[in-house]
Amino acid sequence: MNYGDLTLHTDKYQINMMYAHWRNGTDRQKAAFEAYFRKLPFGNGFAVFAGLGRFVEYVRGLRFDDETLRYLAEQEEGYESAFLDKLAGFRFTGDIWSMEEGALVFAGEPLVRIEAEAFEAHLLETALLNFINYQTLIATKAARIRQVAPDDALLEFGTRRAQEADAAVWGARAAYLAGFDATSNLRAGHLFGIPTSGTHAHAWVQMHDSEEEAFRLYAQTFPLQVTLLVDTYDTLRSGVPNAIRVAKWMEDQGWRMQGIRLDSGDLAYLSKEARAMLDQAGLEYVKIVASNDLDENIMLDLKAQGARIDSWGIGTQLITAADQPALGGVYKLVAKERDGEWEPVIKISGNPEKVTTPGAKDVYRIIDRGTGIAIADYVALTDEGDVRSGEPIELFDPAHPYLNRTVSDYEALPMLTPVFRRGELVYGQPDLTAIRSGHRRQLAMFRREHLRKLNPEHYPVYLSVKAWKQKTELIRKRKT
Amino acid sequence: MNYGDLTLHTDKYQINMMYAHWRNGTDRQKAAFEAYFRKLPFGNGFAVFAGLGRFVEYVRGLRFDDETLRYLAEQEEGYESAFLDKLAGFRFTGDIWSMEEGALVFAGEPLVRIEAEAFEAHLLETALLNFINYQTLIATKAARIRQVAPDDALLEFGTRRAQEADAAVWGARAAYLAGFDATSNLRAGHLFGIPTSGTHAHAWVQMHDSEEEAFRLYAQTFPLQVTLLVDTYDTLRSGVPNAIRVAKWMEDQGWRMQGIRLDSGDLAYLSKEARAMLDQAGLEYVKIVASNDLDENIMLDLKAQGARIDSWGIGTQLITAADQPALGGVYKLVAKERDGEWEPVIKISGNPEKVTTPGAKDVYRIIDRGTGIAIADYVALTDEGDVRSGEPIELFDPAHPYLNRTVSDYEALPMLTPVFRRGELVYGQPDLTAIRSGHRRQLAMFRREHLRKLNPEHYPVYLSVKAWKQKTELIRKRKT
Repeated sequence: MNYGDLTLHTDKYQINMMYAHWRNGTDRQKAAFEAYFRKLPFGNGFAVFAGLGRFVEYVRGLRFDDETLRYLAEQEEGYESAFLDKLAGFRFTGDIWSMEEGALVFAGEPLVRIEAEAFEAHLLETALLNFINYQTLIATKAARIRQVAPDDALLEFGTRRAQEADAAVWGARAAYLAGFDATSNLRAGHLFGIPTSGTHAHAWVQMHDSEEEAFRLYAQTFPLQVTLLVDTYDTLRSGVPNAIRVAKWMEDQGWRMQGIRLDSGDLAYLSKEARAMLDQAGLEYVKIVASNDLDENIMLDLKAQGARIDSWGIGTQLITAADQPALGGVYKLVAKERDGEWEPVIKISGNPEKVTTPGAKDVYRIIDRGTGIAIADYVALTDEGDVRSGEPIELFDPAHPYLNRTVSDYEALPMLTPVFRRGELVYGQPDLTAIRSGHRRQLAMFRREHLRKLNPEHYPVYLSVKAWKQKTELIRKRKT
Repeated sequence: MNYGDLTLHTDKYQINMMYAHWRNGTDRQKAAFEAYFRKLPFGNGFAVFAGLGRFVEYVRGLRFDDETLRYLAEQEEGYESAFLDKLAGFRFTGDIWSMEEGALVFAGEPLVRIEAEAFEAHLLETALLNFINYQTLIATKAARIRQVAPDDALLEFGTRRAQEADAAVWGARAAYLAGFDATSNLRAGHLFGIPTSGTHAHAWVQMHDSEEEAFRLYAQTFPLQVTLLVDTYDTLRSGVPNAIRVAKWMEDQGWRMQGIRLDSGDLAYLSKEARAMLDQAGLEYVKIVASNDLDENIMLDLKAQGARIDSWGIGTQLITAADQPALGGVYKLVAKERDGEWEPVIKISGNPEKVTTPGAKDVYRIIDRGTGIAIADYVALTDEGDVRSGEPIELFDPAHPYLNRTVSDYEALPMLTPVFRRGELVYGQPDLTAIRSGHRRQLAMFRREHLRKLNPEHYPVYLSVKAWKQKTELIRKRKT
């Protein structure tokens, strides 16, 4: 089997539902699904959307080849061979809209909307959620880390602790698009053009008779970019003094050491001591890199203690999003075709936030024309037509009616972009550098209170009055 | 670029160290590395080793092709072209020993030992840790889940929340080898021959005018394996009654419904009520499947409440190991070649558990001959020769000398198996079914007190007296 073929990267029930539709003659009936999450991760005020690039390639690559069909033919479900023949000719023929990568996104608003034959729309669910759940999670975590160190170099060092190989590269990409500067993972560097970075391991030092000799040989090999790991034996009594000796020797050769790396111990204390030792030796230009299970909270704390760290190697906590390792993104049916028309559908739940909002929807970001700052997101039914900038709209919060207000001096930015139209890719994906600067521009459109890492002010996502009325009407119908 | 090529699935510093060795003429100097973890995950009493299958394929596939070499040639490190030529001819030529997949393993003992040219040994670190850290973590989590539900069907349903595509399939494999029965992921089913399982989504119900119609059409499509999801609208007032009607209709056709699935709400209450309703309808044979953010703790609690659940669909908590999403496995140099002899090396740390144990080591499982039960693991230097079953050995705990004892009526099972010898694969990998039964046999060799999920009794890992003396000697030398 071709390991890279992701056509079977799906849950079995998707194929079963496709089969059931086909058997019952409803496979060409259209369905509209939306992917969204119900709760922001990490207590953050926003999430950073990512995963679209991967999803687009997946959709384009969907083909049931002979080997895949043979595998399906063996399943105990006993799929008929005419069904397998239909799969053999499978191509995605529907429409997809999506947030762009790097966009700030919020709970409860559609991130991706798919309108396609039921047959196709089911198949895409699992892979879509797998990609955007993980990549959005990591991009969001990376944005939190960037926030506590706006001017420092941030290096993604997590591959050895990543949850397998794909997580390492797509996590590195998500981190980069949300503001990291480089990754240690060469495959990510090669695949996506991310700058790569690396120092050396303790083993390099251990392989030599003395730490100083190991340092000198390394410096001689990479005179223009040497960062020495100073904690193999004793950071302040051995590592830093040896690094200083080698830095002075480098000066004699006309070279300049880039940095030293601290990888254990009390990073606040060690960085201050190491800084003082370096400065005293006239090595103000030698930077200090720190690593060892860092995250945004530890970094903020280190900074509050006056740690002298210029550059941060972040591993486990970022690449696994250790404090919340899954984003609970879901994919829900919002409308189905009936007699050539769209009919909104609902899923009820005893748990109020699990009740779906019926109808295919668009998302607009409402920008105050005076300040250029985002006021709220506005979710309206697609059949309400475009929200035209400047026409008065009611921002309506059903849970808190006293907060309702009408705005008119605004610009409405449509957030969902067409990606596929009748199966054709119509979206020119920006390169990663453009996505990264797009993300920075997005941040600049928000008030700092919405962006802060701890207890951010809630950024409101409003539902149009029409969408809200339709929802309450459908709940009423279902309940009676 | 060929996405599936994992040769660059490594940290840049590995290539940099390779280059530095090559530049300094030490690239053929031999090095011995060991991979191990310092702390068991989840407070468990053991871990279940996994990841070797993936690692073996990775080592066999290591080739620097033209595209890879072009990428490396562009790096700012300025690798000389003679180095890239050397990489072009790269083949792994060293020796690898490993625990077998499914083995119960413990903190501080070598899981994998690599003896190879420094050049090669560095390259392998990142991928090895990436694979075994994740897969061992998930296999261990799966073993904990299996423990609370020894006789129930356990289904891995986590793909949509997995940390990208590789995690979904390798996580499914790890879960299966540690006792799960099936996965929903078809790619994992196809790649590894794991049984696959699936029901249907809420969308299937929503696509139809009534829940009962949706159920009947599904049952008609899959008369031999239908499990109906009953919580789209109201579990007890709509879902279960409709499922019962369809089950009775199926009986009329000569079919039997397999089960119903509960996916929200209070699973203890709902399962008992649903069981009673099914039983009252004469449907004692219809099983109840539960899903919705389950883990071993919730499952145990549900069982304590008398929940009537036969089968469990486990997603997020398993596939991300949400309560501890990384195993901190490390890869440390333990010996280097000097004048054709092995010389043990140490890494000191202010943190005692981070001090390495010098010298290449083997692991023996000491089995009491009388009971057949594992007493302890015994880690000895490879140059101590084989531990022969029955020769008295001293089980020696330097931290707790009063616990020391000598055993003689034992069998010593060598745990590290040769996998590569001079670059040749010498290990016949068992198929997944054999790994799975091997794991079950391993469990049977341990006292239940070591295996229990909460506050397990510590299973001892002893160091040979010679290894311990060597370690203290090297610490003394480094400290003076």
